[in-house]
Amino acid sequence: MAEEVGSLIARRGAALICGGLSGVMEAACKGAKKEGGLTVGVIPTIDKADANPYVDVVIATGMGTARNVIIVRSADAIIAVDGSFGTLSEISHAFEQGKKVVSLGSWDMRKIDVPEDLFYVAESPAEAVELAMKNSKNPGRNSIPF
Amino acid sequence: MAEEVGSLIARRGAALICGGLSGVMEAACKGAKKEGGLTVGVIPTIDKADANPYVDVVIATGMGTARNVIIVRSADAIIAVDGSFGTLSEISHAFEQGKKVVSLGSWDMRKIDVPEDLFYVAESPAEAVELAMKNSKNPGRNSIPF
Amino acid sequence: MAEEVGSLIARRGAALICGGLSGVMEAACKGAKKEGGLTVGVIPTIDKADANPYVDVVIATGMGTARNVIIVRSADAIIAVDGSFGTLSEISHAFEQGKKVVSLGSWDMRKIDVPEDLFYVAESPAEAVELAMKNSKNPGRNSIPF
Amino acid sequence: MAEEVGSLIARRGAALICGGLSGVMEAACKGAKKEGGLTVGVIPTIDKADANPYVDVVIATGMGTARNVIIVRSADAIIAVDGSFGTLSEISHAFEQGKKVVSLGSWDMRKIDVPEDLFYVAESPAEAVELAMKNSKNPGRNSIPF
Repeated sequence: MAEEVGSLIARRGAALICGGLSGVMEAACKGAKKEGGLTVGVIPTIDKADANPYVDVVIATGMGTARNVIIVRSADAIIAVDGSFGTLSEISHAFEQGKKVVSLGSWDMRKIDVPEDLFYVAESPAEAVELAMKNSKNPGRNSIPF
Repeated sequence: MAEEVGSLIARRGAALICGGLSGVMEAACKGAKKEGGLTVGVIPTIDKADANPYVDVVIATGMGTARNVIIVRSADAIIAVDGSFGTLSEISHAFEQGKKVVSLGSWDMRKIDVPEDLFYVAESPAEAVELAMKNSKNPGRNSIPF
Repeated sequence: MAEEVGSLIARRGAALICGGLSGVMEAACKGAKKEGGLTVGVIPTIDKADANPYVDVVIATGMGTARNVIIVRSADAIIAVDGSFGTLSEISHAFEQGKKVVSLGSWDMRKIDVPEDLFYVAESPAEAVELAMKNSKNPGRNSIPF
Repeated sequence: MAEEVGSLIARRGAALICGGLSGVMEAACKGAKKEGGLTVGVIPTIDKADANPYVDVVIATGMGTARNVIIVRSADAIIAVDGSFGTLSEISHAFEQGKKVVSLGSWDMRKIDVPEDLFYVAESPAEAVELAMKNSKNPGRNSIPF
């Protein structure tokens, strides 16, 4: 699912920014690279080798999970795919910055009364990317959904 | 309610660490100072004058709400009082660091299936501080609940 | 001079990472884009519009000049062009991370006894880029001089 | 020398803020505690146990040496004792924030033409603390020299 999200983002001509490690992050980057997209990995460590092999631009923060805030600050639209508490922190920071989040099999924030216009639940990668693009803060140049 | 939490923390001999600004943070600091406690304010700006007048030690991060991560990393126990998305991000970072959170009129994370042993709901300031102390990562020296 | 450095970096097939704002940073990005290079701007604010128009990938840290550390951590080689105390902090963080710095009209760290193998003084943009490439930590993929 | 600096800071009624680890930092904290002072350690890791035993308030940043910026931002006056490149980065960030630095056997920034009113060289702990206090940004409450 993450791989398909990555591919669709790239096909839209948008860059992909994520945490740069393995799992969902690697799958999304792999999908984006398949379509010739640009991938940015904001990693928690200072060792650029920690980034997955599909990351073009590695930002080595050395800040641990505090780097989640930087990912969200740098993104124009946010898609949460699966994920645990780190993803929950990214969703929270997005809201706190007034940015909308699309959930694809991730935390369901509707259950804790997040305003409806801040949170969307998508049923498929295509719907997720469609919703993210439509609600991007910067639909033009430098549009970097996560 | 926050003021009472601050007072109870101080009476237990623990230091209070919080975001250092106004509102709930100021009330908690005020309560702690009433009881002669030590208060630490980790503020988002670089201007120490932004801290509320009840903060003893001002940590000026200049990192905006990314400072929430530092508060949680520095706390041995976490009490969430009221709060909006910034508080939600602190709760998320706490979970992600394996730290327990006591909610006092704050987000109810039980609704989104957070493991039971990570999240407690308190009905009163006394219960909140009791739960926080019991679940502190460091019940001895340097115990700094939020 | 900064523009020429940017052009030469791009011609070598390397990405340019910098602070993303105006002045030397903008000149370097402009030079890199002239040659079809990739530019990354790690800005101090949370507003991506603060990046100069020649930045492809904007990383919005919201950390103020603490973002200097992230630039240095993410760079494989570092060229300091002109610059004031912010540049001095970047040079210091580079040394502290064991990374070499090439100075082009910037601070002369030889005067305060920095080890010779950590600091080079270049007389021209061409020499600066040559020295940076030769001393890069990662001469292959993802080589991102500053 | 660091221990004496710590003692003198405490005797002046100021809090000591430092990097919280061993070596010079531990000596300074030890000196401050001898005189009943308050010590704050802003550590690079997320593990509060990494702080030296003389630290009262541990701020666990998990940001590595990027925490140097936070120390400088939080200090009202800065004394550099001995030190290597990490200390050099702190001195640089201080200048960049317009804060004065007193050097006690540390880097001699006069050699690279730092403005005279930003940098003092002290010959003894007593002179260092005297100069730091006189040039503090906040000589009253919350004065936290480093």
